Amino acid sequence: MNDASDGVSMEELQLATRNHGLPLETLRFPVTPIGLHYLLTHYDIPMIDPATWRLRVDGRVARPLVLSLDDLRAMPAVTAAVTMECAGNGRALLEPRPASQPWLLEAVGTGEWTGVPLSHVFDAAGILDDAIEVLFTGADRGIEGGVEQSYQRSLTLADARTGEVMLAYELNGIPLPPQHGFPLRLVVPGWYGMTNVKWLTSITITDTEFSGYQQSNAYRLRQTKGETGAALGRIAVRSLMVPPGIPDFFTRTRTLGPGNCSLSGRAWSGNGPIVTVDVSADGGSSWDHAQLDPPDLGDWAWQCWRFEWLAAQGEYELCCRATDAGGNQQPLLPEWNLGGYANNAVHRVPVLVTDNDRKT
Amino acid sequence: MNDASDGVSMEELQLATRNHGLPLETLRFPVTPIGLHYLLTHYDIPMIDPATWRLRVDGRVARPLVLSLDDLRAMPAVTAAVTMECAGNGRALLEPRPASQPWLLEAVGTGEWTGVPLSHVFDAAGILDDAIEVLFTGADRGIEGGVEQSYQRSLTLADARTGEVMLAYELNGIPLPPQHGFPLRLVVPGWYGMTNVKWLTSITITDTEFSGYQQSNAYRLRQTKGETGAALGRIAVRSLMVPPGIPDFFTRTRTLGPGNCSLSGRAWSGNGPIVTVDVSADGGSSWDHAQLDPPDLGDWAWQCWRFEWLAAQGEYELCCRATDAGGNQQPLLPEWNLGGYANNAVHRVPVLVTDNDRKT
Repeated sequence: MNDASDGVSMEELQLATRNHGLPLETLRFPVTPIGLHYLLTHYDIPMIDPATWRLRVDGRVARPLVLSLDDLRAMPAVTAAVTMECAGNGRALLEPRPASQPWLLEAVGTGEWTGVPLSHVFDAAGILDDAIEVLFTGADRGIEGGVEQSYQRSLTLADARTGEVMLAYELNGIPLPPQHGFPLRLVVPGWYGMTNVKWLTSITITDTEFSGYQQSNAYRLRQTKGETGAALGRIAVRSLMVPPGIPDFFTRTRTLGPGNCSLSGRAWSGNGPIVTVDVSADGGSSWDHAQLDPPDLGDWAWQCWRFEWLAAQGEYELCCRATDAGGNQQPLLPEWNLGGYANNAVHRVPVLVTDNDRKT
Repeated sequence: MNDASDGVSMEELQLATRNHGLPLETLRFPVTPIGLHYLLTHYDIPMIDPATWRLRVDGRVARPLVLSLDDLRAMPAVTAAVTMECAGNGRALLEPRPASQPWLLEAVGTGEWTGVPLSHVFDAAGILDDAIEVLFTGADRGIEGGVEQSYQRSLTLADARTGEVMLAYELNGIPLPPQHGFPLRLVVPGWYGMTNVKWLTSITITDTEFSGYQQSNAYRLRQTKGETGAALGRIAVRSLMVPPGIPDFFTRTRTLGPGNCSLSGRAWSGNGPIVTVDVSADGGSSWDHAQLDPPDLGDWAWQCWRFEWLAAQGEYELCCRATDAGGNQQPLLPEWNLGGYANNAVHRVPVLVTDNDRKT
């Protein structure tokens, strides 16, 4: 834990230089180009030989499976655009700042994932009647909270059986890049990133609840260490803005000239479609509705919003705030928790409008 | 400037979350996969429509040119593997720490670039006899050191005329990703990253020396603000190691079991081939020669080194140190300068060898 006045520690910096955020100007791309999608790697990116790699499907199944990449590619394939966000996005804007990967607001991206519906693999294996959970294990291994572990997360059988869950082997039409889980990863549309286990090696159907580190210790909403806390799952509603104007290299402060300024950005939620995005030019005192594009990337990807702002000389704090069909709206201020998760407070972009007619 | 005891500032963190480093375990790839190559973007990544984009070649030429992407693709093409490194790599390991992008050691990557030899474009334009420099201008625009600017760097005509300099439109066999300079960038093998201007819009041949911000203020080796300082150019010799064992998520401390441990990494220099890489397991007190693979990626890319280490229980500081054909050797300790450039001190990797036979 860090006081607001503390700088970022060398441990946090090590994580920030390894892990990748989406530069917010590239929110302009409907589908995030390879290399710009956010990336959080708990341990190391493993090197996997696809020729010898196999996926095991075992546990409470009638027919345990050992599948090669070719076996999976021979199964029915689906493609979906999915907006994925790290549960820790916004962490470094909390005070005090929880000590972990210090995301500001850039831990998001939208990929076009192609793979096998998980339900198809379930049908092939034959889930037994006493099954209640599905445990996903990745090839990445490390130490966390003092526990040596392979990365593992579970889903309830009901959540794993929803039609949109897939085992993905392609991103944006090419084989998964190594950093995104080559040769196979789980993709659970609408859920925070930690759910989408990369470098899958096994899927185990169980009649017990998984209580491993990433399920019971990490990724829970807690105020104090003793609490059990609620498990994180679906992505909380959020919108982000393409920062207008031009940046200062070091401060990233934005400068633009006076006149018409076309603001735009993206909005998403794991709890239903976006119904409104509001924009404020005065730090959230007053709001106007933005125009919301149709969800043309499908049910699981962000939607584009647009707002024409007439910029007069001065200093402003531009804000955007989304509301989803479940009635969830981004809060004006961050809501603190011990792990620094799910901080979906409104995006605030300070800008300076100068008196010249800089055309940017 | 920051005291060693200071944490990283929010300004530095903003840069660290935007810019991308190479996770060092992916040094295992001879050619860096898209999305893992380091990335330093001074301003914003611009959105460029390739249909309307043109490259202007003007100034002291007999035949000014306006070239489309199709025009460039119709010219003779070359492909080369090139190791590119940011001049600021190692900056955050200096004390006091210069305030800029806070790289540790991950600002490097090797790409297979395809494009037109710059000399071919020079021949087409006809360089006039009084020309002495070539100014490259990118589409990226911002404010730096109080100066609003498009990103610009120059080369002397002699440096620009070396046969290996190219205008690249492909990386690893695909069109340049937006973040690497789409649709066209300069690639100057052996030179630090800032030389390789992205999102090129014009090439101007001049009979004067360019004195813009990125040439005269930034990217110079200085001890004090008043100095002119030497210009940075060719990449200083460096080697890096794939960190052995498994990491702790937060501290990144490495743990491995006892026994044979195959160490490996990469080494490169902009001043000639690598002739030796040495490895130390005791923080640099004693050194052994590593095995150096042939330069099978060509003259401009890193070489792989390997060393078999017999690890006994204990704590170690593993180091690697390269020497190039020019007799340049990495220093044991960083050499400080105001901008935090060219810190090529030996790579130090603390590891803990445990008493169990963890197989990693």
